[in-house]
Amino acid sequence: MDLCVKFKNYNMIILGIDPGLAIVGVGLIEKTPQKSKLIHYGTVLTPKFESTPVRLAMIDEQITRVINKYRPDVVAVEELFFNTNITTGIKVAEARGVLLLCAIKHGGLLYEYTPLQVKMALTGNGRADKKQMQFMVRAILELDHIPKPDDAADALAVAICHANTTQLQHREIN
Amino acid sequence: MDLCVKFKNYNMIILGIDPGLAIVGVGLIEKTPQKSKLIHYGTVLTPKFESTPVRLAMIDEQITRVINKYRPDVVAVEELFFNTNITTGIKVAEARGVLLLCAIKHGGLLYEYTPLQVKMALTGNGRADKKQMQFMVRAILELDHIPKPDDAADALAVAICHANTTQLQHREIN
Repeated sequence: MDLCVKFKNYNMIILGIDPGLAIVGVGLIEKTPQKSKLIHYGTVLTPKFESTPVRLAMIDEQITRVINKYRPDVVAVEELFFNTNITTGIKVAEARGVLLLCAIKHGGLLYEYTPLQVKMALTGNGRADKKQMQFMVRAILELDHIPKPDDAADALAVAICHANTTQLQHREIN
Repeated sequence: MDLCVKFKNYNMIILGIDPGLAIVGVGLIEKTPQKSKLIHYGTVLTPKFESTPVRLAMIDEQITRVINKYRPDVVAVEELFFNTNITTGIKVAEARGVLLLCAIKHGGLLYEYTPLQVKMALTGNGRADKKQMQFMVRAILELDHIPKPDDAADALAVAICHANTTQLQHREIN
């Protein structure tokens, strides 16, 4: 019972990350016992004219800065789903490796979610499209607009996915 | 002419890396104007029971240690070639991202070579098999045995590839 009360008073800061090399989506929310609130969203952009290693170093620096500024309790990173270009896929995977390293070195607990898990957690539908997802991100965080660009909205979706998933887990325990 | 003399007296330490998540091949050579000499070879192993982020952090730590110990002038990393499992490929790409970051943060100049370039540089044959490659690594470095495991021999091959490639480039200039 005491543990339950403690849990109810616990606010958790979650950093959601949508991996990429050209653009990394970043979304920070605070999960209170009642709801999830927006803290910050944005992107890390890397220029195409730079080499991959330089772009990876830029991502490392910027994400480390975000983590040090907001001190998230949890970092939630989306897993990759290859449906298009294999070459682009390799580059995204290389960036994702750097993001995972960054999170485990500087961030709190680290969780990974598949696109299917994120869609299920937000809409209850594993086949939800981008518009449905963005509608739910806006509704859950009680925003007056849909966060832009898409990568930032995707990152917020991953953060909300973690918030909702842990909420369910705790419900199951109680 | 003066530049040429300087180049001839210049010994270069090259760290070759064969990327992987379970096993990273590491090969260090010293390139003198006359030949390439072995300094060190080995592997970084990460246990399967650990999560990917923890394994990436292990790779980061070990490779940073190697770079800080040997202070290479150049780090040469093999590019990925996907011919088998896409899931394994993603994991290797994530590890490769961490290796590139490590090299650009702590190492000297960074170069990337495709498997074809490495085979061409060592044997003159882009279709050379593993045995031919290992024979050449042993011959070029004047070793009395073939370096084991294969990943370490592959890493030495990438380092030799850089040594031979730069030699050719300088020959062209002269």
